[in-house]
Amino acid sequence: MQIKLINLSLPFSLYWWDPVESNNMCPKTKKELLSNSTMAEPKDELPAVIVLGRPSVLNFYGDQFSSKFRLLKPWESSLPLDQFISTHAQTVQAMFCSGTTCVTPSLLRQLPSLRVIVTTSAGLNHMDLDECRRLGISVANAGTVFSEDVADFAVGLLIDVLRKISVANRFVKNGLWPLHEDYPLASKVGGRKVGIVGLGSIGLEVAKRLEAFGCIISYQSRKKKPVVYSFYPDVHELATKCNVLVICCALTDETHHLINKKVLLALGKEGVIINIARGAIINEMELVQCLVQGQIAGAGLDVFENEPNVPEELFSLDNVVLSQHVAFFTEDSFRDLYELMSGNLEAFFLNKPLLSPVLDD
Amino acid sequence: MQIKLINLSLPFSLYWWDPVESNNMCPKTKKELLSNSTMAEPKDELPAVIVLGRPSVLNFYGDQFSSKFRLLKPWESSLPLDQFISTHAQTVQAMFCSGTTCVTPSLLRQLPSLRVIVTTSAGLNHMDLDECRRLGISVANAGTVFSEDVADFAVGLLIDVLRKISVANRFVKNGLWPLHEDYPLASKVGGRKVGIVGLGSIGLEVAKRLEAFGCIISYQSRKKKPVVYSFYPDVHELATKCNVLVICCALTDETHHLINKKVLLALGKEGVIINIARGAIINEMELVQCLVQGQIAGAGLDVFENEPNVPEELFSLDNVVLSQHVAFFTEDSFRDLYELMSGNLEAFFLNKPLLSPVLDD
Repeated sequence: MQIKLINLSLPFSLYWWDPVESNNMCPKTKKELLSNSTMAEPKDELPAVIVLGRPSVLNFYGDQFSSKFRLLKPWESSLPLDQFISTHAQTVQAMFCSGTTCVTPSLLRQLPSLRVIVTTSAGLNHMDLDECRRLGISVANAGTVFSEDVADFAVGLLIDVLRKISVANRFVKNGLWPLHEDYPLASKVGGRKVGIVGLGSIGLEVAKRLEAFGCIISYQSRKKKPVVYSFYPDVHELATKCNVLVICCALTDETHHLINKKVLLALGKEGVIINIARGAIINEMELVQCLVQGQIAGAGLDVFENEPNVPEELFSLDNVVLSQHVAFFTEDSFRDLYELMSGNLEAFFLNKPLLSPVLDD
Repeated sequence: MQIKLINLSLPFSLYWWDPVESNNMCPKTKKELLSNSTMAEPKDELPAVIVLGRPSVLNFYGDQFSSKFRLLKPWESSLPLDQFISTHAQTVQAMFCSGTTCVTPSLLRQLPSLRVIVTTSAGLNHMDLDECRRLGISVANAGTVFSEDVADFAVGLLIDVLRKISVANRFVKNGLWPLHEDYPLASKVGGRKVGIVGLGSIGLEVAKRLEAFGCIISYQSRKKKPVVYSFYPDVHELATKCNVLVICCALTDETHHLINKKVLLALGKEGVIINIARGAIINEMELVQCLVQGQIAGAGLDVFENEPNVPEELFSLDNVVLSQHVAFFTEDSFRDLYELMSGNLEAFFLNKPLLSPVLDD
């Protein structure tokens, strides 16, 4: 398995953090280091980090985080969230959050000492970045940690929809094979005209993989990229030229409901749509209508507008493969995520540049 | 979609077949051709082909085959099979069959006029090729028509097993997402050490695809090939070096139960096995034991020792994805297969070289 190691030049445990003096790290003497090397660091001496949105990486690397930071977890407190936040408002400088945490101006006002936000998501649609910039708060995200896994999952969803793998699995496991001889032919992957909406790091990984299957790649993006794939600035035009769309762009005001009925009808009856980005990039109600009415051929959806709620009309459709926002959910991604997230927090407390900055003062 | 067109130099309908004079084709005069061009050819004048094993391509291209050949179908006759065969024994020169037809010396003795066998399978384990050779019977198979589709399916099965796509699909469609927050992490595709057993046309296509995912490819084969992948002549040694095995070889006496408990244990607890070749290459009983006892991590199986019967112990295992021998089952493959199969039969009756010969006199 592939392991990406993110190393700081000095191990974080060699530093001592003074919670009063912000952003000052005092290297210990060699003697102090040696004398401390066999004893656990007192919890109170660890730098404090408020944790919102309960990042799932804590389910797997909670102990490792807790050995480095004093995690302030509202879900372990008996206080209501607002009161919990106000208790730490004057001192806490770092926030660790997930993509479900709405980082609004109102939340930021509650935390006047905040200097850095580290989010486990690659997407930033949950954060008011302008307000963070105005307040001088640095932001780090998951960067490209998930790109390969998410691209793998996108390709897996596409193969599943075209080749009916989940349907076959259910058919055989329900003991139906000896009873039925005839089943419909599936669709070939190779030769498909695949339009990638958003050619960032995930989109590029999807393109690389699908090229190996013999797919013909085009893309839509804000601007033309230095790649050999055909570029269409307009997503509707891309859809008219393709029979697969793979949604890989960020959710922004511009991409909200970018994929609507008009785009889906342009994709056409043989068209398949894959979404591993954010649910609200597609007008979900119109997508459901198109699928139910057979106006497109199928869909593979890892993300939805109102997670964890999924339109029930999709549950009975064999040409639709659904998953619970887990395209990034691998052991490798989470190990890399743990290293990147803790590395960003360590870098902040060491007064070093963030490892995956979105905003960095 | 990718379309492969197989063209003969002259359309077959321009020829007239004399069933008495074997392998003689008499070109019609231009006048005769023109006068016939608007009328259907009388059925009796079409060359006779006995069809055994009821190839599934006839479910989709039956009319097209019937417009070119007088198909002798035992399943449409009231006669028992042996009697049906003996009725046509003295005249029929061509057999069209599927991979389920056991072409034994005994069957061949029943058809003394047989000159060609065209099989819809890529594998030839159902045929006694030595006996065909001895009797001067030409043989054509599906060649590489299925290679890309089968390779796509193999990769789809591997992604599904590693990334739990079928499991996720069932989880969401059963409405469980809002009820459960925790699910296990999946495994990354990239960085996997993939051993391909049999580096023929399918194996090469699998390798090409998995390279794009960042997998590290090795292979076992009868002899070393001019490729960059690491070569292991022994499958047990390959298994010790890999954590995925993809079975792509032909079923022969040498490969029967090639994958046994010893090989599976060498693959190890993180190991995944994919089989899109033939069921009997794996000792199925030992594979089931290893899966049930957690001695390997998972499997994606399209083929089984005793199809359509699948060991029921596998039905409840989430780490096992099953399908009903459909890795080749796409619209594109079947169109190509129809063209190749009818092209081979036409070539035979035109006394031309077969398009995909295994044995050709």
